[in-house]
Amino acid sequence: MLNLRPAQPEDVPLILAFIRELAEYEKEPQAAVATQEALLRDGFGPQPYFQCLMAEWNGQPAGFALYFFQYSTWEGRPALYLEDLFVRPEFRKNGIGRAFFTRLAQIAIEKHCTRFQWEVLDWNQPAIDFYEALGAKVLREWLNMRMTGTALHHLAAGSPGASSEQK
Amino acid sequence: MLNLRPAQPEDVPLILAFIRELAEYEKEPQAAVATQEALLRDGFGPQPYFQCLMAEWNGQPAGFALYFFQYSTWEGRPALYLEDLFVRPEFRKNGIGRAFFTRLAQIAIEKHCTRFQWEVLDWNQPAIDFYEALGAKVLREWLNMRMTGTALHHLAAGSPGASSEQK
Repeated sequence: MLNLRPAQPEDVPLILAFIRELAEYEKEPQAAVATQEALLRDGFGPQPYFQCLMAEWNGQPAGFALYFFQYSTWEGRPALYLEDLFVRPEFRKNGIGRAFFTRLAQIAIEKHCTRFQWEVLDWNQPAIDFYEALGAKVLREWLNMRMTGTALHHLAAGSPGASSEQK
Repeated sequence: MLNLRPAQPEDVPLILAFIRELAEYEKEPQAAVATQEALLRDGFGPQPYFQCLMAEWNGQPAGFALYFFQYSTWEGRPALYLEDLFVRPEFRKNGIGRAFFTRLAQIAIEKHCTRFQWEVLDWNQPAIDFYEALGAKVLREWLNMRMTGTALHHLAAGSPGASSEQK
C-alpha cells in the first residue's frame, strides 16, 4: 500500500540517503556532497528553496521526489521543476514513480503552473520512454549551460573568462 | 554609461516589452502571452517567483536579465538560474551582456550558489561561443523534458498518458 506525503524536517536523514542512492544510480556517487545541515537549512526554513514528497510502501521508506518552482516569462506563470525522483530498486514496479508524477501534476495545476519540467540523462532510454508515454516532450533545441567553481568566481571578479574573449 | 539596477514594480511594462522582443528574436513571438498583471503578481509579491535586473545605457532602457533560484541536491546549495537575458539591438556591443553576467555571478556567490545556469538555443552559436568564453560548459548529457496542456491535466486526473503504457 502506497502513501505519499510532504516531507518534514525529521525526514532529512532519509532525503539525504535517497539523494546519495540516486547519485550512485546516475554514476556520480562522489558528486553528492550535500549534508543534513544544508538540506534542513535550505528546505525547511521560512523561504525554502525546495519542496519534497516522500513515498512509503507498506510503511517502509520507498522513495522521494524533490521539486521547486521556476517561472515562464512567456506564459507569465510558474513552472513546477522536478529536480530528483528516486524509488529504491526493491520497491519498483509498484507504480510509485507514476504516482509521484500524478501528484506532482496535481500540485503544478494547484499552483497555476502551465509547465511541469525535469531533465533526463540521454542514455536513460527506459526513463525517456516512460516520460513520453506520460505525454512529456524532449526539448532537444534547448541546451543546458552551467558555470561553476573558478570560472564563476573569475566572472564575479570581473576577470576575463577561461579563454580569451575578443568583442 | 551603463547602469544596472534591480527591477521595481513600475518597470513591469518595460519588462513585458523586453520579454516580447526576446520571444520575437527567438522566433516565437506568439508564445509570449504573459500580461503586466501576471508579472506584477508573480515577481513583486511577498514570495516572488523571480528577480529581475534592468540595464540603462545613458539613461535609456537597454535590456533586462530575469532570474530565479533552483536547488542542487548533490551540492546542498542553491543555483542561480538565468531565465531571460535581452539587450536591445541598438545597445549591443557595449558590454551590457557581459556586465549582466558579471553581476549575476556576484549575486550567485552572495547567495551561496555553487552553480550559475541557463539554457541556449542550439542554433545560437554566437551565444554559445560567448558563454564558453566566459567559462561555462554545455551539459549535453542532460535532456530537458516538458509536460504542458492536455497531457498535464490528464496526468493530474490519473488518466493514462498520451500513448498507451505497458509496464
